[in-house]
Amino acid sequence: MQQLTIVKVGGKIIDDTESLTKFINDFALLEGDKILIHGGGNSATNLAKQLSIRTKIVDGRRITDKEMLKVVTMVYAGLINKNIVAQLQKLQVNAIGLTGADLNLILSEKRPVKEIDYGFVGDVKKVNSQALLMMLEQNYLPVIAPLTHDGNGNLLNTNADTIAAETAKALSVDCNVRLIYCFEKRGVLMNEADENSVIPIINLEMFQEYKNQGIIQSGMIPKLENAFQAIASGVKEVIITRASDINTGKGTFIQ
Amino acid sequence: MQQLTIVKVGGKIIDDTESLTKFINDFALLEGDKILIHGGGNSATNLAKQLSIRTKIVDGRRITDKEMLKVVTMVYAGLINKNIVAQLQKLQVNAIGLTGADLNLILSEKRPVKEIDYGFVGDVKKVNSQALLMMLEQNYLPVIAPLTHDGNGNLLNTNADTIAAETAKALSVDCNVRLIYCFEKRGVLMNEADENSVIPIINLEMFQEYKNQGIIQSGMIPKLENAFQAIASGVKEVIITRASDINTGKGTFIQ
Repeated sequence: MQQLTIVKVGGKIIDDTESLTKFINDFALLEGDKILIHGGGNSATNLAKQLSIRTKIVDGRRITDKEMLKVVTMVYAGLINKNIVAQLQKLQVNAIGLTGADLNLILSEKRPVKEIDYGFVGDVKKVNSQALLMMLEQNYLPVIAPLTHDGNGNLLNTNADTIAAETAKALSVDCNVRLIYCFEKRGVLMNEADENSVIPIINLEMFQEYKNQGIIQSGMIPKLENAFQAIASGVKEVIITRASDINTGKGTFIQ
Repeated sequence: MQQLTIVKVGGKIIDDTESLTKFINDFALLEGDKILIHGGGNSATNLAKQLSIRTKIVDGRRITDKEMLKVVTMVYAGLINKNIVAQLQKLQVNAIGLTGADLNLILSEKRPVKEIDYGFVGDVKKVNSQALLMMLEQNYLPVIAPLTHDGNGNLLNTNADTIAAETAKALSVDCNVRLIYCFEKRGVLMNEADENSVIPIINLEMFQEYKNQGIIQSGMIPKLENAFQAIASGVKEVIITRASDINTGKGTFIQ
């Protein structure tokens, strides 16, 4: 089967021009077929602030009202996505920047309103793996922004970690997929303050235990949930690591 | 030879949600292979205003400083482009939103500083017609935002009329290209105030005369210059018409 690496980059790497450029250089060196999925960092929040739009976050998830949807569309699909593409092109990597609306790549549905109304947030329904495979065949490198569409003309804000997991799962039918979540830390840490406390391998049982003990907290919980779902759905390898370690094989391996 | 229609839409059509949706519906009905190139309308200026960034325009061309480049990247490549794509997908048209950086589609160079420093504005050097042909072959509909790149990691703001003309010229080697410039007016008018004064056919001689007489003014001048260049470079047909007339064959034909 075809080997494929899917890398998700987010967090502070996206916000810092220097870190992002360094990451793009490292990413360009990764061998074989690959797909990049990026998050939004803090730039959407910053732009919203400048436009006096209030950002509301519940359980680490942004509430996306109509104005905020415009902001994330501008920042994620425009500013961040196209700057990554231009930098990859500089390195002779034939990148193409996409959202889930392009080529109907990722169809989602607006999250149903229960206790919380998340607004224009999409839960992934279907990843168009055939369109992605066709692009890889042409040696294109898809760079995907965290936006999907509902097939009814609406864009929806969608968690980048989830997009990465769903894309990896869909492509596992045709490829041996390695999924790398990278950010500014060395991996999943036993102690947030100690970069040397990387958990080398984690399984579902350990995750539950660490979660109960409060060792694994906040944003890392949904990230790991996505990671375990990916492994359970046929993704060959899932790694959580530091952006600068994507070529070293270091980090936390999900089992 | 393959028939291809390239449509450029801009002006007030882009700014008005209702007009844009109507246009997208009309455009979806156009038969055969097609490419859509869109302008930015006034939304970039409006966002810049909200962010207290001053917009400077000289001879109808925007001066693009670093902050304005961010704004146009957000608005053109993000907000406008992806909303058009989502709406086309709703109509089962397999649209893909692109800038000149994606797949190295349009390479440009930063305009040299002479009397005026236009800032981060690109003059088109090369259109990657092969990548566009490949997409058409896959039944993808490219939707191109008016941004290009310099191959050195930088995005550049580029006039959408020019992108349309340059794309049409490049694709004329392999296709019979029809280029339609559409906007809110019925065509090139003898009298700006009279929608019934459409000039049905215009040649270079007439253009010079009308320009000298002040009948053709401001924004219409570079548009027509682009149109004549396209005709001179092998584009089969160039039409300037009203957005709602793209399927009627009405408007001003360039000879």
